[in-house]
Amino acid sequence: MRSYLDEFTRRDWQDESPDGTVRLAVVGLGGFAREQALPGIEKGEFCETTVLVTGSPEKGERVAEEVDAERVLSYEEFHEGEAEEGYDAVYVSTPTGRHLEYVETAAELEKDVITEKPIEKSVERAERLREVCEAAGVALMVAYRPRMEPDFRRARELVRDGVVGDVTEVHVQFSFPVLEMGGPDQWRIDRELAGGGALMDAGVYTATAARFFADGEAVAVQGETVSDHEAFDEGVEERANYTVRFENDVTASCSTSFTGAYNDWVEVTGTEGTLRIEPAFWFNVDRDLTVERDDWEATVTGPTVDEVTEEFDHFGYAVLTGTDPEPDAGVGIADLELLEAVYESAESGERVRLD
Amino acid sequence: MRSYLDEFTRRDWQDESPDGTVRLAVVGLGGFAREQALPGIEKGEFCETTVLVTGSPEKGERVAEEVDAERVLSYEEFHEGEAEEGYDAVYVSTPTGRHLEYVETAAELEKDVITEKPIEKSVERAERLREVCEAAGVALMVAYRPRMEPDFRRARELVRDGVVGDVTEVHVQFSFPVLEMGGPDQWRIDRELAGGGALMDAGVYTATAARFFADGEAVAVQGETVSDHEAFDEGVEERANYTVRFENDVTASCSTSFTGAYNDWVEVTGTEGTLRIEPAFWFNVDRDLTVERDDWEATVTGPTVDEVTEEFDHFGYAVLTGTDPEPDAGVGIADLELLEAVYESAESGERVRLD
Repeated sequence: MRSYLDEFTRRDWQDESPDGTVRLAVVGLGGFAREQALPGIEKGEFCETTVLVTGSPEKGERVAEEVDAERVLSYEEFHEGEAEEGYDAVYVSTPTGRHLEYVETAAELEKDVITEKPIEKSVERAERLREVCEAAGVALMVAYRPRMEPDFRRARELVRDGVVGDVTEVHVQFSFPVLEMGGPDQWRIDRELAGGGALMDAGVYTATAARFFADGEAVAVQGETVSDHEAFDEGVEERANYTVRFENDVTASCSTSFTGAYNDWVEVTGTEGTLRIEPAFWFNVDRDLTVERDDWEATVTGPTVDEVTEEFDHFGYAVLTGTDPEPDAGVGIADLELLEAVYESAESGERVRLD
Repeated sequence: MRSYLDEFTRRDWQDESPDGTVRLAVVGLGGFAREQALPGIEKGEFCETTVLVTGSPEKGERVAEEVDAERVLSYEEFHEGEAEEGYDAVYVSTPTGRHLEYVETAAELEKDVITEKPIEKSVERAERLREVCEAAGVALMVAYRPRMEPDFRRARELVRDGVVGDVTEVHVQFSFPVLEMGGPDQWRIDRELAGGGALMDAGVYTATAARFFADGEAVAVQGETVSDHEAFDEGVEERANYTVRFENDVTASCSTSFTGAYNDWVEVTGTEGTLRIEPAFWFNVDRDLTVERDDWEATVTGPTVDEVTEEFDHFGYAVLTGTDPEPDAGVGIADLELLEAVYESAESGERVRLD
């Protein structure tokens, strides 16, 4: 384990130090964009924020001053290509169900794209999103923080090197009280904007983590949704539980919740040991990475790395070097196919095959 | 939490100190009976082993000497009522699919019964087992160690007192490499004797723990089984994963395995916090009971209590005081109904309703 730890925060995806930065237009200034993404970009090497796109000019001006951005655009101005010489790429941080329209404009303007996860609110829209980027020849990355975070990357290296033997199963949980983060009107519990409830917003983390550690494609899904709480009575699920079987016969037991207390972790079991990351998904916290085997046990905590910085630097590096960013549309669409299969199974009561 | 800890090992089920002991005939001298049950009984107050029943006279004599038992009987002699004046109750520790025949004889002899879990290999046989005991008017306890273990009992008191708020979900895992414990010929992977594989032997722990903490009855089950390993190719599952929905809308994500490394834990999430027991099911080990809330976090380790002693003393106490033992046939049958529903769902691919 020592060799993994000596360079715990190393960027296994970076071979060189390209010159310059990618100038970003940040579309959507919600809480995550303002509090996590913009500071994360600022701390990094390969991106800078030059343009903000928002429906609220006052908020835009206030934030522009904080992050030293050059222009604030309305959504209409963005679609019209206003100030397009002032940015090289577009970060789409709107509600999930609106990613497509901003990616379409970015692709028309021949700007590279990094978009939040889930990639869109349906597989159908996600496929269209991928197609417009491919047709325009622009890069497309999906902003999966955990996939760029050192604990996740070191953990998967350990797993691939056999530290837990052959992986047999994965448990993943992501629960947080969404109503304490925003009121009952927030977009995360609005089906039109989010495509669903806990399963879309928290579930995309559990799905991608299960796939990351199972290291294979999902072939069958069974699941169930629960909606008890009054805030969720208009049709988005408060909670969801699902099991996944992968092509390599690894299985995953995943759960997501908008009403349980904060609880987020991944536990991987193999024939020779177990590995756990906790907390797994919340941002900018100390994570415990624990490996247990018959012969030894170790827990590593930190160093804490801003995975948002990692994510944007990975994107900027890919754009500057002309390489492909790792969490691509394929990852985003595979996760979404899995989540749609959970909804289908929850509705029909039947196992849904994905192969 | 302090008040729970001050008397961590208290027996919430014991109100008095009855005189005397219950003399046990122990039927079946497998590894668990010899290494755990007999020493556990010996340490306790309310039971003593006076008769051993085994198919191997030499083993019987050797063990009788160790535990100071008075008689060794063959299975035939037991069925014939030999030496029946020498014991008051019968502990059935045979392979699961043979519980019924020994319980039938015990009931005929009007002996009280404690039988290992799963109660039998099918709900149908378990119902017959319950009926013969009821008809004979003898006590019947199912030997659920975890349900008598202090961490489990204190944890459920904490949960019932609201320490994690309203429970939303439970994750449970029990994995152990069965082939390292016994060869490919052991009864645990013989469908005729065990009724199944990992889901019967390890799964009965996950099912009963999920029900214990969900504190309600299961209404729907979805599940899947995996059999990759060559030792399991004759039809018992190597692994199983299932989700349960309870009447109170608590959900459980459970997994069981005969090929993964040792890994056994329970994690309960509620609206106000989380609670975890690890290890949860292995016997006579230090368990960590961890509670996390926004305002505080605590982990208690030990004191280690021999839950086998707790279990037999609970049985002996019930017999001596004429009260009902807690893990009764109803608990055993409800767990088995849940496990049979997992098999049914694994086979059909459909959600199975239990209500």
